Amino acid sequence: MLLPGLSARHAPLRCAEFSGTSLEQLRQAQAAFVDEREWSQFHTPRSLALAMVGEVGEVCELLQWRGDAGASPGLPGWTDDEREALADELSDVLSYVVRLADVTDIDLPEAFLRKVEKNRAKYP
Amino acid sequence: MLLPGLSARHAPLRCAEFSGTSLEQLRQAQAAFVDEREWSQFHTPRSLALAMVGEVGEVCELLQWRGDAGASPGLPGWTDDEREALADELSDVLSYVVRLADVTDIDLPEAFLRKVEKNRAKYP
Amino acid sequence: MLLPGLSARHAPLRCAEFSGTSLEQLRQAQAAFVDEREWSQFHTPRSLALAMVGEVGEVCELLQWRGDAGASPGLPGWTDDEREALADELSDVLSYVVRLADVTDIDLPEAFLRKVEKNRAKYP
Amino acid sequence: MLLPGLSARHAPLRCAEFSGTSLEQLRQAQAAFVDEREWSQFHTPRSLALAMVGEVGEVCELLQWRGDAGASPGLPGWTDDEREALADELSDVLSYVVRLADVTDIDLPEAFLRKVEKNRAKYP
Repeated sequence: MLLPGLSARHAPLRCAEFSGTSLEQLRQAQAAFVDEREWSQFHTPRSLALAMVGEVGEVCELLQWRGDAGASPGLPGWTDDEREALADELSDVLSYVVRLADVTDIDLPEAFLRKVEKNRAKYP
Repeated sequence: MLLPGLSARHAPLRCAEFSGTSLEQLRQAQAAFVDEREWSQFHTPRSLALAMVGEVGEVCELLQWRGDAGASPGLPGWTDDEREALADELSDVLSYVVRLADVTDIDLPEAFLRKVEKNRAKYP
Repeated sequence: MLLPGLSARHAPLRCAEFSGTSLEQLRQAQAAFVDEREWSQFHTPRSLALAMVGEVGEVCELLQWRGDAGASPGLPGWTDDEREALADELSDVLSYVVRLADVTDIDLPEAFLRKVEKNRAKYP
Repeated sequence: MLLPGLSARHAPLRCAEFSGTSLEQLRQAQAAFVDEREWSQFHTPRSLALAMVGEVGEVCELLQWRGDAGASPGLPGWTDDEREALADELSDVLSYVVRLADVTDIDLPEAFLRKVEKNRAKYP
């Protein structure tokens, strides 16, 4: 299966902006992966929340002993492998956020934009 | 400022699929919000990771005392307010995932699809 | 009920070492509090784990926007209220660690010392 | 080095109550381990908080796909290895809670008992 938006290059991920894939396309890619393996039966909201924490823990592990100076914006001094590890772990967190929204019938992009509006009202 | 994809309805969020907004549009909405408040100076990777954990904690709080039976897929029995609270907290987690990717120059949607491919290789 | 080891002073908590209360006394204080409220029925391992994450999130929130320089060892520059907030949230995390060990029949202090020995073997 | 309270038996950890080791003894065991390796320089509050999240994630991973029924109080059906894995991960979380309190000069057992009193006032 060729996924939408997946380029052929294997160069380290660097970007000024994200590529144009929609969150709905990510949801579909994730849902297809889960359905093919019949893992849907395990994907209750609480199990997905616990799994999300596991992946958040792995993001934090990549940042824990560096100090602020060793993890500046843009990640200067990080190797390509370290950068890819962070990209992978952030993707894992995202996959559980997307999946949690999916199984709870939440329109995640709409909820996001709505929350930005709430934050604008809260921090004018 | 009118955000892309934000509908006028205030009905509870329910969906079979996500609306079409791209992750890049969410990144831009988030970046604009941050820039207007000059909060970029605080958004180091480690600070964003800690903030992400705070929001993950709030997702978990909404699920902690219900048991699996009280948090089934589709959230039967949840009020509109409870459903909106979960949508808000998931959005907050997503906002820090997006922001972390943004400040570390990671193309999040591409990284996500790449990780799905890795997972296909790992779980054939 | 007068709890063991609770001194009368209300001065900010500062210490070079911990007071002598055992972890077993903390377990008992926590168990008594839970039993009096008949909350035991809610304290399944997964629910306690989710609750622990909620409290960990609150610890992280106290540290998230300070940068390393604003949260040095000893917490110089922190007010008594800020210091007490951190003490409270760390206590909340500890209470769920203790409670999780209690409901899963794990001898937490023995497990801790055993793990230190494992770590000595791993990092000689 | 023979640690206080560490029994010789290698049977799976099971207990109705914790052994008598104090939290101060655990703090000392942890501090000695850290000092011997000169790791104190890395143990800032924020780095320890991120490390704590990593260990919390590992606790959650052990519970994530079981459902409530597969992780009942007392852990019926768990093997000795699974039980030991949970004991190890809970110990790791505890070690960072203890270490965070240590480097921030918080008397953890006193803070704990004080927080129980606050909770009694909040939930009478």
